[in-house]
Amino acid sequence: MSHPIITLTTDFGQGSTYVAAMKGVILRHNPQVHIVDLTHDIPPQDIHHAAFFLAATIPFFPEEVIHVAVVDPGVGTTRALLYLEIDGHRLLAPDNGCCSRLIEPGQAPSRVICLESQKYWRSNPSATFHGRDILAPVAAHLSLGLDPTRLGPKAASFERLAIPTPTERAGQIEGEVIYIDRFGNLITNIPATSVERFGPRSCVQVASRLVGRIVSTYGDAAAGECVALVSSFGLLEVAVAGGSAAELLGLRRGAKVIMSTHV
Amino acid sequence: MSHPIITLTTDFGQGSTYVAAMKGVILRHNPQVHIVDLTHDIPPQDIHHAAFFLAATIPFFPEEVIHVAVVDPGVGTTRALLYLEIDGHRLLAPDNGCCSRLIEPGQAPSRVICLESQKYWRSNPSATFHGRDILAPVAAHLSLGLDPTRLGPKAASFERLAIPTPTERAGQIEGEVIYIDRFGNLITNIPATSVERFGPRSCVQVASRLVGRIVSTYGDAAAGECVALVSSFGLLEVAVAGGSAAELLGLRRGAKVIMSTHV
Amino acid sequence: MSHPIITLTTDFGQGSTYVAAMKGVILRHNPQVHIVDLTHDIPPQDIHHAAFFLAATIPFFPEEVIHVAVVDPGVGTTRALLYLEIDGHRLLAPDNGCCSRLIEPGQAPSRVICLESQKYWRSNPSATFHGRDILAPVAAHLSLGLDPTRLGPKAASFERLAIPTPTERAGQIEGEVIYIDRFGNLITNIPATSVERFGPRSCVQVASRLVGRIVSTYGDAAAGECVALVSSFGLLEVAVAGGSAAELLGLRRGAKVIMSTHV
Repeated sequence: MSHPIITLTTDFGQGSTYVAAMKGVILRHNPQVHIVDLTHDIPPQDIHHAAFFLAATIPFFPEEVIHVAVVDPGVGTTRALLYLEIDGHRLLAPDNGCCSRLIEPGQAPSRVICLESQKYWRSNPSATFHGRDILAPVAAHLSLGLDPTRLGPKAASFERLAIPTPTERAGQIEGEVIYIDRFGNLITNIPATSVERFGPRSCVQVASRLVGRIVSTYGDAAAGECVALVSSFGLLEVAVAGGSAAELLGLRRGAKVIMSTHV
Repeated sequence: MSHPIITLTTDFGQGSTYVAAMKGVILRHNPQVHIVDLTHDIPPQDIHHAAFFLAATIPFFPEEVIHVAVVDPGVGTTRALLYLEIDGHRLLAPDNGCCSRLIEPGQAPSRVICLESQKYWRSNPSATFHGRDILAPVAAHLSLGLDPTRLGPKAASFERLAIPTPTERAGQIEGEVIYIDRFGNLITNIPATSVERFGPRSCVQVASRLVGRIVSTYGDAAAGECVALVSSFGLLEVAVAGGSAAELLGLRRGAKVIMSTHV
Repeated sequence: MSHPIITLTTDFGQGSTYVAAMKGVILRHNPQVHIVDLTHDIPPQDIHHAAFFLAATIPFFPEEVIHVAVVDPGVGTTRALLYLEIDGHRLLAPDNGCCSRLIEPGQAPSRVICLESQKYWRSNPSATFHGRDILAPVAAHLSLGLDPTRLGPKAASFERLAIPTPTERAGQIEGEVIYIDRFGNLITNIPATSVERFGPRSCVQVASRLVGRIVSTYGDAAAGECVALVSSFGLLEVAVAGGSAAELLGLRRGAKVIMSTHV
């Protein structure tokens, strides 16, 4: 029989006491669990970053995994904690929109439950660390086979983030940078389908600067050349071969990106 | 049957060759082990930080886990390496005080053994990396069921750090900042019991600056407000909602904190 | 029966979406795998660093482990992806020299196979992320017992990095700094055997600066003293007790180091 898997996605900082304490609580309830770190480096309390991160990673996992996400500026307030089932994936997270990008606009999770049954929490939960005191023990109980309907009532609704979508008119699509990776690559919200439709000779501008050309992969560019390509996220990306586009262009998340069929 | 668990706490740096080599040695002796990273980001050779980290995390783990801590400025000198049993938890660590905070003042570990039997070490151990050459293989042997009394003789004594404790007089308690987390929250050594005794309307000063008020959780504060609260460590904490108290106040570990029943 | 182990060594950045996506793909193919992070902090696209890292860590692991290394500036170009067997260890990596240091000059891996059989890849692999789309699923297939000869044809040759070796003449050996660890210790390419042959009273110069003396371990030096010693890598190292030699001397990889029998 397979051991259960629990993944952790937090803004606690790699190597923080908070992450280690959560691991302890999970293993105390179920020492058979494999804990898989996804990231602990979400920028502090950055729900938009968390939403992108989860959408870019959760779909690759098998469905039996339990994913715990703790980016929780509202800890201890009235915001709910949720169990969600989305496309067969199971997540535990605060109700703050961090799961928004996993769901198509207009769609809904197949199940959303409010974690209200204190039976599965640590006793005397703190007001400031629900990751350790509620989400970790609940995840461990689920890994032991607990039926999620036992966790609490169905949620009436759940938070969605306003997610910026590209706008298109007259042979031009305007989007924005939504994520910057370690290499300084600028990931935009313009989908691969638009890039294909506009074609390889279309023109890409980022923050008013013209990008050289659209290539297939980094190795097609000369060292230091700024190019556009379809990223492995399936989104238009601006990159500098062997360098950092973010640094070279001095850009941050939210920077405007325009692709057009002509200059 | 459950697989054994070994946790690692070091100052080697996340992703260093040193951590990876320790993992290799453990798995070579026992490929069944689940290795759980607690942290590799203890500031280099900072035994006080390690002591706080271990006290804040080890108690959450189940007792069957073996914890390896390597913050070891004295490596290769005459300092001993120890196997310790504290409240049912099992640790391997240099004898430099890094386990001090796990033990109440006046109490002693239920067992302390000097790792002297070279039979369980790597052959030809280096003078500079006992984590890899002694602690890792010894942890793996323990995970295979080795009786710890085989590791060496009982230790006659063991190092304790001088741990700063708060002082109290005339309706005033004076402590200090002992840990700063990733969010810039200042964790003090003033216990929750004192905060309760002094009451929610008592006054908190940190480095001569008056903190606004005592709240229950971050969400009770206005954005940017500097507040005090009982942290998830069970200790008084000074925080800035949505910001960093450490940055705002320009403070470091050791900064003085005073709580009093009146201004 | 033992669960299979797959290790990951990348330059994607600890906590990046890329690492998490690879973990998802591996676990989707084989949820029984234990994934062990070696490092994700190789400096971006630094093949020389990756080569040192792998040589310093892989030999400690048991042979049944599958090691995946993704430092891949040439992703999407014609560079091959390889399965290698070296001294019984099994690696999956781009053919860019990152495995060079695991092999003695003049020796060859016992087996090198080009990953060409798309049957074991993700369908529609991207042009920019072969770690996720080729190496991760291939590693998972191997962990399930796939015969590596099924992965593709034997490779005719494979990339080797030019690895700087020390030169010796007239009682003097000249090498260079090849790695700097988190503590700021300068690891050189002068082997322990040379240090022994030259003896403890020989003289070490780094970037024209005379190092105090050769010691056995850090604890033998006074606080702040700059000393040389045989590192746990089996190489001459320059260190500052309780400090950072890299910072104190302002040095980087490639800095010249000379050991001589007299000043």
